[in-house]
Amino acid sequence: MCRFPICFLLIGGLCGAQGGSDSQPASSNVRGAEYPRVSSDLRVTFRIKAPQARQVRLQPGGDDNGLGKGPMDMMRGADGVWTVTTPPAVPGFHYYWFLVDGLAVGDPGSETYFGWGKESSGVEVPEKGTDFYAVKDVPHGEVRTRWYYAKTTATWRRAMVYTPPEYDRNARARYPVLYLQHGAGEDERGWTNQGRANFILDNLIAEGRAKPMIVVMEQGYATLLGPVQGSATQGRGTGQSVVFEQVVLNDLIPMIDATYRTRADRDHRAMAGLSMGGGQTLQITLTHLDKFSWIGSFSSPLRTGFDLKTAYNGAFADAAAFTRRVHLLWFGAGTAEERMLKPALAMSEALQQAGIRNVFYQSPGTAHEWQTWRRDLHEFAPLLFQ
Amino acid sequence: MCRFPICFLLIGGLCGAQGGSDSQPASSNVRGAEYPRVSSDLRVTFRIKAPQARQVRLQPGGDDNGLGKGPMDMMRGADGVWTVTTPPAVPGFHYYWFLVDGLAVGDPGSETYFGWGKESSGVEVPEKGTDFYAVKDVPHGEVRTRWYYAKTTATWRRAMVYTPPEYDRNARARYPVLYLQHGAGEDERGWTNQGRANFILDNLIAEGRAKPMIVVMEQGYATLLGPVQGSATQGRGTGQSVVFEQVVLNDLIPMIDATYRTRADRDHRAMAGLSMGGGQTLQITLTHLDKFSWIGSFSSPLRTGFDLKTAYNGAFADAAAFTRRVHLLWFGAGTAEERMLKPALAMSEALQQAGIRNVFYQSPGTAHEWQTWRRDLHEFAPLLFQ
Repeated sequence: MCRFPICFLLIGGLCGAQGGSDSQPASSNVRGAEYPRVSSDLRVTFRIKAPQARQVRLQPGGDDNGLGKGPMDMMRGADGVWTVTTPPAVPGFHYYWFLVDGLAVGDPGSETYFGWGKESSGVEVPEKGTDFYAVKDVPHGEVRTRWYYAKTTATWRRAMVYTPPEYDRNARARYPVLYLQHGAGEDERGWTNQGRANFILDNLIAEGRAKPMIVVMEQGYATLLGPVQGSATQGRGTGQSVVFEQVVLNDLIPMIDATYRTRADRDHRAMAGLSMGGGQTLQITLTHLDKFSWIGSFSSPLRTGFDLKTAYNGAFADAAAFTRRVHLLWFGAGTAEERMLKPALAMSEALQQAGIRNVFYQSPGTAHEWQTWRRDLHEFAPLLFQ
Repeated sequence: MCRFPICFLLIGGLCGAQGGSDSQPASSNVRGAEYPRVSSDLRVTFRIKAPQARQVRLQPGGDDNGLGKGPMDMMRGADGVWTVTTPPAVPGFHYYWFLVDGLAVGDPGSETYFGWGKESSGVEVPEKGTDFYAVKDVPHGEVRTRWYYAKTTATWRRAMVYTPPEYDRNARARYPVLYLQHGAGEDERGWTNQGRANFILDNLIAEGRAKPMIVVMEQGYATLLGPVQGSATQGRGTGQSVVFEQVVLNDLIPMIDATYRTRADRDHRAMAGLSMGGGQTLQITLTHLDKFSWIGSFSSPLRTGFDLKTAYNGAFADAAAFTRRVHLLWFGAGTAEERMLKPALAMSEALQQAGIRNVFYQSPGTAHEWQTWRRDLHEFAPLLFQ
């Protein structure tokens, strides 16, 4: 590929920037792309050249996207370049795409982030006074792509495995493990690409605030493709979440414990997830307390009015026994996502009243987006394995 | 993200497939996407729903793309869905995008692959009778994301590091290192995402045909951002390739040798690259033979009529000395990319005539595309460190 117009990118970088005099290209852009740009007051300016289009709009991903309500009309310039500047945005990571004559298209200036079931554009809006998810001058762990064969699904699957900075230097040390799941429409890359989980952990470990740990991120989807084997479907159907649970228990955890220097017992095994992944976490951990003792639910779609006695196979029925066994039960939600916040608060309070200790964290001003979940991880991880 | 229309994907998977009765979704698609589809005769059917578009065309990436000459007109169906089926394609990986009323847009059914300076769509067309780059039931190495600070550029940079399957089990073993570079418009993810270098190495190592080795893949771009330090610019300017050379020599290699269990000498250090990366490889290795002794140039844009006495600071001037020092000088090109093949053949022959032994590999029927470079790696890697 020697025909790449590198000169175009370089020239594009030197002229034409219009996103406010103090604006900067978003850190989520591809190398050299000048748009989107973020101003110091957190307005975001988007741009796309579409000379033949009749209408171009900016579509933030979802109703509670921190860019504001969409779609937003973009204005056509004389050169066929369409632009829009949003109101000041909520800090964090926001999915978006353009609607060009009604067709949803990605922004060639943006990196892609798997969300909404496709490779989506995304824009990073910095939060002033906060750098807990920045790449800093501290020792860095690795994120390792690990392929493994899952008997449950009869397929090769890909896990992303964070190992802490010291992992390769302490060749005899063993580490606790956090299994960390993404939301619906996302995949095993979300927690690092969008969530910056590796930098959050690097920074917490460098500050001595979190124990060095392994973090395993897998795709929360699984279907039975090959011949049904073992206990995968015994009496519980073949739905995605049931099959995923079997993958975690029968394939993923044994593979991780056989491949990495883990502390392979329930006292050193945590699971957390966001949205769909939080629901999967509660289902898997609470019905398998022999395997897990640290539990995190971030912005999960919980039902109100659940029955303490029967929920999750009766895990909460004996409060004293639960409290003895479970080291941490942790809930989080953003204050701007009432739909997730209220049922989670109700569940947390019902548990407290029943004598089941739990922690609740409210992320100020953020909705059903990655800034909430970055903060969740930043609050949750220091409590683990202590 | 609990609002993801998973049902749509599932239903979409059950109906509407039209790409030939024996066609299959391309392995390069996102999970659940039915299009593009590849038939057994290697015709590829593309589809996009764009009810308001007046014209939709398929644009293969580049003139020598194995999908054929573009742009190809797509036909509008009554439902606003546009389709096209290509002639039988050349096996391998092909970049593409859609031109919707002239606007280049990605295919939401495709994963994205960084090429052409943006996240591009790509389609994998299988090659019959060949599985050297497939994920197989063999021990798998890891691809590790490694962030490090480069003093040359005063920035944090990301390297992708392949470690062989046995790396973590043989805690005292040390390994040779291959530095492996992408082409212009691509980045450090290309050799694994598009090239499947990790599977190629896994399979070769499992067959006993290649030595276990570490493979380091970095981005072949570098500019001086911070204050100029040390020797980065001494007398040689601040162009991208000069700065990248300094990053490799002064930042990347020392970091790799300090972080991984390498054999940190020239006898155990190789470099190879494709297209632009091949040009960088020749420049860096031939002018630093104290650091490298195994050299691979894949489809590089070479000049004809170079001067054996003066080229690369006179590296070839003393043929006997060169042959004593350099264990392997390897060239590759596809038979369908005459523009790259002819100058490389001319250089190889001139070197042979001057007494400088080298290996030339011609990839049958492939052009300036990833199938050529996968085959290059598959031929080149077994010769390394033997």
